[in-house]
Amino acid sequence: MITAKRLEFESSVVVIGVGLIGGSIAAAIRQRFPTCRIMGIGRSRDRLVAAQAAGLIDHFDVRIAAESFPSGSLSVVCLPVDRIAASVREILCLADDQSVVTDAGSVKQLIYDQLHEVPAAFDRFVGSHPIAGAEQSGFEHAQPNLFDDRMCVVTPESGPDKVVERVCRFWRMLGCNVAKMSATVHDQILAHTSHLPHLLAAVSASAVTAEELKYTGTGFRDTTRVAAGSSELWTTILLGNRGSVLDSIRTASKILIEFENAIEKNDSDALRTLLSDAAKLRQMLHETK
Amino acid sequence: MITAKRLEFESSVVVIGVGLIGGSIAAAIRQRFPTCRIMGIGRSRDRLVAAQAAGLIDHFDVRIAAESFPSGSLSVVCLPVDRIAASVREILCLADDQSVVTDAGSVKQLIYDQLHEVPAAFDRFVGSHPIAGAEQSGFEHAQPNLFDDRMCVVTPESGPDKVVERVCRFWRMLGCNVAKMSATVHDQILAHTSHLPHLLAAVSASAVTAEELKYTGTGFRDTTRVAAGSSELWTTILLGNRGSVLDSIRTASKILIEFENAIEKNDSDALRTLLSDAAKLRQMLHETK
Repeated sequence: MITAKRLEFESSVVVIGVGLIGGSIAAAIRQRFPTCRIMGIGRSRDRLVAAQAAGLIDHFDVRIAAESFPSGSLSVVCLPVDRIAASVREILCLADDQSVVTDAGSVKQLIYDQLHEVPAAFDRFVGSHPIAGAEQSGFEHAQPNLFDDRMCVVTPESGPDKVVERVCRFWRMLGCNVAKMSATVHDQILAHTSHLPHLLAAVSASAVTAEELKYTGTGFRDTTRVAAGSSELWTTILLGNRGSVLDSIRTASKILIEFENAIEKNDSDALRTLLSDAAKLRQMLHETK
Repeated sequence: MITAKRLEFESSVVVIGVGLIGGSIAAAIRQRFPTCRIMGIGRSRDRLVAAQAAGLIDHFDVRIAAESFPSGSLSVVCLPVDRIAASVREILCLADDQSVVTDAGSVKQLIYDQLHEVPAAFDRFVGSHPIAGAEQSGFEHAQPNLFDDRMCVVTPESGPDKVVERVCRFWRMLGCNVAKMSATVHDQILAHTSHLPHLLAAVSASAVTAEELKYTGTGFRDTTRVAAGSSELWTTILLGNRGSVLDSIRTASKILIEFENAIEKNDSDALRTLLSDAAKLRQMLHETK
C-alpha cells in the first residue's frame, strides 16, 4: 500500500459512462489522488452536470471528441458490454499514442473479437474487469471504496508489457487486487462465478408467483437479490458470453438432475453428499476472501 | 398490537429442541411475557445448562417425561422435520388434555402423515411454520425479535377451533403475522419460496471450483449464502417434501431450458423477457413485505 501510494498516479483519467462503476472509479480517484483531472463522457448532459456538481468529474462531454482526451490520458470505458468495443475504437482513433484505454466490462473475449479488425487497438487497449458492483445503478450510488480489496481481472491479449502494467497499476492504486489471464479463461470463470448464479437466481424468482411472495424468508430474499437487476444489462452480458454461459447451464442441468434423482429415489445418502459438497465449497468462500 | 398484549399469554411453554428457533421463541417470550414459565427439553445436558445460564429457560429435562409438561402447557417442537412427529406423539401421551402441541418445522404434510395412526393427536396438535431463520444455528444466536413481522403459517387439519386459535394467538403474541392453510398447500408454496431456492443455490455453489472462488463478487456471495447451511437438516426438509420439491425442480428445469434456448438462438428479445419477468417478480418483494 505504501509502495503503491509512492508511485505516480495518472495525471488525467477519462471515464466513459458515469454510472455506478464509472462514478465509483471517479470517487476513488478523488479520494486518493485529488490532483488527477477527471473527464466524464456520457449521453445525458443533465446527468453529467449533476455528476460534476456532485464533485465526481472536473469536465464533461456528451460525445467522444479529440479534445476530450488530454495527451497521455488513461480512459476507462464503463458502458454495457455490447457498446464497449465501439467506444474503445473511437477513443483509439482520437487519443494520442501516449494514451491507454481499458474498460470495466464483465465479458472480455467479445470485446477483443469486435476489435479484431483494428489491429492497432491492441497496442493501447487492455481489457479489465473489476469484480465489484452493487444493487443500485447511477453515479448517485458511487462509492469511493467500491474497489477496496476487490479482484480486478486484466486480460492482456497482445498489448506491450508497459501498457499492461500501466493498466494493472491503475486498478491497484484504486484498491484492487489484480490477476492477469486470457480473455477466454476470464469468460469461462465468470460464467461459473457470476453469470450462472445470476441466471439461477432468475429461475428461482420465476418459479414463484406474486401471491406466494409473502411466504418467502431471508433465504429467498438473498438468493434472488441479483435477479432484480437490469434485464437490459444482463441480456448483453449473457449473450456476450454465450459459449461459456451455455456450458455452465449444461453443467447446472446435470447437477440439478443429480439432485432430482436423489430426491426421486429417496436416497438420503446421495442427497446429503450433494448438499454437503455444495456447503463445503460455499464455506471456503470465507477462507478465500 | 395493544389488543394482543392485553390478551393473556400462555402461563407455561415447553420448548423441545433449544436451538436457534427454540431459543428465539424462548427469548421472545422472556422479553414480552416475563411471567411465563419456560421449560427446555433437549438431548445434551451441557447445552441445556448453558441455555438456562443464558436466561432462556427456567427448567430443563434431557428426555420427554410427564413431569416436563405442566397442566395446560403449550409445547413447541423445534426439531429437524424427520423427528417432529415422534416427539409430538410422545408429548400427546404425557401432557394433560388442556395441553396443546405445535411445531416449527418447514414441512407439514409429512408430520400429519406420520401422526395418522394417532387420531387423538389431531385434537391437541396443530402444525406451524414460522418463516424465520438465520444463517447460524444454536441458542447462542437466538434473537428475541426473530419473529417480528414474519409470516407464520398454521396448518389446521382437524383440531378444534379453540386449539387452532390458541396456537395462532401464541405466534401473533410473539410478533408473527399468521396465515392459515392446509398442510399440502403450505408444502407446495414452500417448495417454491424456500426449498427450490435452496437447491438452486446449492447448484450454483457446486458449479464453481475452489480455485474460482476468488473471482466471485457480492452476487455469488448472496445467491449461494444458504447453500452453506446444514446438509443434514436440508436433506430431511427436501425429502420431507419430496413430491412438491420434485414438481418445483421440474418447473425450474423447464425455465432453465427456456433460458438455454434463448441464449443458444442468440434471441435477445426472448432472453430480455425472461430476465425482466424474473426482475418484476423480485421487485414486487419489497412491495409485498
